[in-house]
Amino acid sequence: MSKSKKRHAETGKKLEGLAQVVVKSAKAKRDPGIEIPTRALSNSVYDERRKIITMGGAKQLRSFFNLGQAKKFMQTILIASGCKELNEQAKTTSIRDLFYHCKHTIEGTRENTFDDQSESDPIIEDLEVAIGSLREELGLFAENKGSMVGPMTIVDDGDTIDLRRMGSGGWSVPSIVEDDVIQFRKHEAQFILLIEKAAIWKRFNEDRFWQKHRCLIIHGGGQPPRGVRRLMYRMHSELNLPVYVLTDNDPWGYYIYSVVKQGSINLAFESQRMAVPKARFVGMSSFDVERFNISKSVTIALKDEDRSRAKEIMAYPWFAAKKEWQKEIEHMLKTGVKLELEALSSKDFSFITETYLPDKMRRKQWLD
Amino acid sequence: MSKSKKRHAETGKKLEGLAQVVVKSAKAKRDPGIEIPTRALSNSVYDERRKIITMGGAKQLRSFFNLGQAKKFMQTILIASGCKELNEQAKTTSIRDLFYHCKHTIEGTRENTFDDQSESDPIIEDLEVAIGSLREELGLFAENKGSMVGPMTIVDDGDTIDLRRMGSGGWSVPSIVEDDVIQFRKHEAQFILLIEKAAIWKRFNEDRFWQKHRCLIIHGGGQPPRGVRRLMYRMHSELNLPVYVLTDNDPWGYYIYSVVKQGSINLAFESQRMAVPKARFVGMSSFDVERFNISKSVTIALKDEDRSRAKEIMAYPWFAAKKEWQKEIEHMLKTGVKLELEALSSKDFSFITETYLPDKMRRKQWLD
Repeated sequence: MSKSKKRHAETGKKLEGLAQVVVKSAKAKRDPGIEIPTRALSNSVYDERRKIITMGGAKQLRSFFNLGQAKKFMQTILIASGCKELNEQAKTTSIRDLFYHCKHTIEGTRENTFDDQSESDPIIEDLEVAIGSLREELGLFAENKGSMVGPMTIVDDGDTIDLRRMGSGGWSVPSIVEDDVIQFRKHEAQFILLIEKAAIWKRFNEDRFWQKHRCLIIHGGGQPPRGVRRLMYRMHSELNLPVYVLTDNDPWGYYIYSVVKQGSINLAFESQRMAVPKARFVGMSSFDVERFNISKSVTIALKDEDRSRAKEIMAYPWFAAKKEWQKEIEHMLKTGVKLELEALSSKDFSFITETYLPDKMRRKQWLD
Repeated sequence: MSKSKKRHAETGKKLEGLAQVVVKSAKAKRDPGIEIPTRALSNSVYDERRKIITMGGAKQLRSFFNLGQAKKFMQTILIASGCKELNEQAKTTSIRDLFYHCKHTIEGTRENTFDDQSESDPIIEDLEVAIGSLREELGLFAENKGSMVGPMTIVDDGDTIDLRRMGSGGWSVPSIVEDDVIQFRKHEAQFILLIEKAAIWKRFNEDRFWQKHRCLIIHGGGQPPRGVRRLMYRMHSELNLPVYVLTDNDPWGYYIYSVVKQGSINLAFESQRMAVPKARFVGMSSFDVERFNISKSVTIALKDEDRSRAKEIMAYPWFAAKKEWQKEIEHMLKTGVKLELEALSSKDFSFITETYLPDKMRRKQWLD
């Protein structure tokens, strides 16, 4: 059986399992219900040993004969049934499309199964945790956001793609990158560089940084989408490639790094298949102003929301335990300014690829 | 001389020409000034013969010895000089990066050359029209937004790329697609299909619509960016491929089509190198509800802003002259609902690729 068929069969079985629980209760004349792990801050835990955010054990029962839950129960079954159809047809689709697929007026009433996508999206997340399948395994994709190039050949949906020869545009990283869709072939990469912004990634591609420094360069257009995170995780764990993260010097940049490294708080159940606890931060530091003699005219004054967000991030358990990080964020607060990667262009268009990052990497000036 | 060098040399000369006008005035002890064509609705004209929106002849003089213009004059020269550096180094960069490159504190003062990117962006547009070079020719790119696959081989920045073998992600359309960067090679395409949304494009890719119907499928993630429009223009005019536009049934969808066909009102000077007046609309129609027996539960009620925007669009000269378009928009207003492409998934995930669009194309049910 091909990997793809195997994955489809496994996910199909999990969906059937869910249905059988309901059928069984109904036949036994009991209230049909589904247990759904609680997706809330209260049920996410920082796992000190594994260094990732994980989901705790709290669960809630969603049952049919409970007036407050009956509609949500119906919606959960509908979404699961839509996913089963998708699975049987071996297709993928967007969460918006699934919403439309499951939307209809209930016969003999004026009631719709769903009125708005904001009702179906959380149900999809419930389903993910209830059966322990990522939405990508269910065949649901998000928009492609992110590109990659570097010294590696991959197979994408049966097509062999040489990431050394992708021109100026790069390979668009899909949202579903499980090993039945994407396989890794020959590569000479020594590390992965995640770059926060598409425009900076283009500078690295144009200057062929990936060739000189033998690395894969990838961006996620801001906070990297799940596809980019999952792909980095796979390359890190299967190919043993270290991950370096290059972001702006601001709380948003810190948080991008935090999500790559420990996982996101909102989607704690994904961490174990996406987080890279060994990722290193080579993003801009507020100490860079002195280190690289950057003009004050290209710094940006912190806003109140930056200050409070910075303090929140300092207090995250995975930052709180690290002296270097405390020093870093305190220095930002003290100097009162933040910095964008583009600020380096005030020196020279290629200062970032020719001087800044090579210097930093050589001196091992990263944060852990 | 290579195409690329030729383009650089030409743009370089235009930038020098601008500088020489200023130098000449200064040497002759006259007020240095630059003539800038007016970028405003008042100076855009619908060219009935060519069927595109063009820029009229109005110009404004921006001079140094005018207190109200001195700062803008300085900024224009700075941006032009930044573009000249970029040109000499044969590099490309983002408009944000150029802003940083040109930003500094003027010696002996506390005044910055630019405080915010909102000051440099319009200056870039001024420069484009003043010297008659698209920003892409100046080496300035926007974010990649859009993908393409289909039966065609291209060369992107020296790398040969087979768009028939791009896996699930597709080729990311760059923002600069001039003929020194992108060249067309062997192809078997018979038309180009522009799809409004990335998620729907994925459905077309997964179902290999482009193979069955021998076409290039391209999306622009909503309103297509300049790179996607310029690329369609080039394929249309150089390869003689007709363009079909598939959008939602709403005023936003109409406007996407309008910009592809006639150009945008705000950037009228681009139309001649981007607009495809022969483009055809195969997007959703409010008549589709009956034609394809679409359930009312997946239609969306028009909002007030939809109604007023629809009326505005009806009145555009290029829509006003067309009976079929008037009928179409009137019907939308009468039925009071709009439709998304995803609504077709209420029938079946692949209804759009297997029934809806093939039927429409066979019956030539498009709008012109």
